[in-house]
Amino acid sequence: MPLHSFADLVADAIDAKGAPACVGLDPVLDRLPTPIRAASSDPVRAIHAFCEGVIEAVADVVPVLKPQSACFERYGPAGVAAIAELIALARARGLVVVLDAKRGDIGVTAEHYARATLGPPEGEAGWMNADAVTLSGYMGPDTIEPFLDCPGKGVFVLVRTSNPGSDAIQAQRLADGRTVAEMVADMVAALGRPTIGERGLSSVGAVVGATKSADAAALRARMPNTIFLIPGYGAQGGTLDDIRPCLRPGANRPGEQGVLVNASRSVLFPAGGGGEDWQAHVRAAAGGLVNELRSL
Amino acid sequence: MPLHSFADLVADAIDAKGAPACVGLDPVLDRLPTPIRAASSDPVRAIHAFCEGVIEAVADVVPVLKPQSACFERYGPAGVAAIAELIALARARGLVVVLDAKRGDIGVTAEHYARATLGPPEGEAGWMNADAVTLSGYMGPDTIEPFLDCPGKGVFVLVRTSNPGSDAIQAQRLADGRTVAEMVADMVAALGRPTIGERGLSSVGAVVGATKSADAAALRARMPNTIFLIPGYGAQGGTLDDIRPCLRPGANRPGEQGVLVNASRSVLFPAGGGGEDWQAHVRAAAGGLVNELRSL
Repeated sequence: MPLHSFADLVADAIDAKGAPACVGLDPVLDRLPTPIRAASSDPVRAIHAFCEGVIEAVADVVPVLKPQSACFERYGPAGVAAIAELIALARARGLVVVLDAKRGDIGVTAEHYARATLGPPEGEAGWMNADAVTLSGYMGPDTIEPFLDCPGKGVFVLVRTSNPGSDAIQAQRLADGRTVAEMVADMVAALGRPTIGERGLSSVGAVVGATKSADAAALRARMPNTIFLIPGYGAQGGTLDDIRPCLRPGANRPGEQGVLVNASRSVLFPAGGGGEDWQAHVRAAAGGLVNELRSL
Repeated sequence: MPLHSFADLVADAIDAKGAPACVGLDPVLDRLPTPIRAASSDPVRAIHAFCEGVIEAVADVVPVLKPQSACFERYGPAGVAAIAELIALARARGLVVVLDAKRGDIGVTAEHYARATLGPPEGEAGWMNADAVTLSGYMGPDTIEPFLDCPGKGVFVLVRTSNPGSDAIQAQRLADGRTVAEMVADMVAALGRPTIGERGLSSVGAVVGATKSADAAALRARMPNTIFLIPGYGAQGGTLDDIRPCLRPGANRPGEQGVLVNASRSVLFPAGGGGEDWQAHVRAAAGGLVNELRSL
């Protein structure tokens, strides 16, 4: 059990900021503030400048940042270089970084992805150096295990996602009575058990959408030591009441509630925040998220 | 129904080369031929040079190339730039390119990934420009659909993978009698139905491992018009007898058998092929694969 596991790092960061808030860095070119768009016609430069500004605006306010890899990958190698730089900047500013890449592959290929996303930046050993990465577990536990060999790093495995179509797979009922999501939850709990740190939390987290609160209590019972990364709050319709069934019972401090609640659009693109003072609006929106989550 | 759907493109390419052979481009630095390693100490340059040589060696022999994104992503932006260049080279040499990236995300994020992997190379609209990409379907049909809006392009959805741990998820039995893999197969068949082309094949393919032949006949029955991308042949232990249950019954030409059989290590790193004449060994190994698959 490492002294500074990923789970301990997250719990400490949440306690320091007072709420389990995560800002999703999902930049969309068409929605960038006017001054950012005016400063550069190059999409990657504009997105890079915007994300730098977001990181500076929220670094003192929230504990965790979740960059969306797809938003950068779509701009090719320049976009990939940008996300790597932004991850380094965010970590230098004290943010814990969860790279949302939803990778999932087997054996040696999973090792490559582990290096690509969690590896240290020196030489050929890797370069993204995120604190954690999101993964798909459809191919089984041996696709997750290579990521667990990275000391101090974590993963979040897709369990119950917030999109409308997820029921077609994840809500299906097995012959043994579990749903498919519950089966994956059991795998996540088992993989995470050896990684439980000083704060009682495992470094193998689960993605559980805020719009699936009816399933959340059952998933929490199956994953008592798991951090739930919860997308779908705010713009996608999830509320505090949707999140409450995800909480670990009896937690005394916010870092031990076992949740990490993500908001993207509502923080990045708040209403009326497209002008010169856009960073103040982003900071205020992040502060609003923290204040809301304090009442969990 | 587009005249030149992805499925038609693959079927024509297979017929032209005489067998449903796919070479997996999974370069591993430690295994590169001696002359390649001697020419450059930079890992990305060495891998790039090796892959160029492989493409030149196999382009006349096999119909399809499957680059493994992870092998390039682990080298950061330079690796990503390399795979994009190699995809362009392979397509210019007449190979159909399936990018093995196993992406899977929702809504606008899926659109970003579709642009990143299948998008045309001009401007910000995209850059990889592969003919098809592998996807995870765990998040449901709405995570696949954005990729189907790309004209002439295809996808392969993970259904039954070849790794040992896959049983823990994919072989689980649902209350309705289907396995999880069969449930995903039904989703694949339904998504693919509107895309069936002139050769009777859909552009929504399935990944079905050669080591899971016991399940293959049932999966074929559920996906009669689906192209099975079959990893696990050769180095992973799959044989021709494992592949036969995957074939569409009654096909008259190899392009209509509905399979695409992948070999990676056995073609890239054939025994004794690490010297000056390494390209001849790769070409011979690719030719051997085609000859074996002709007897399907």
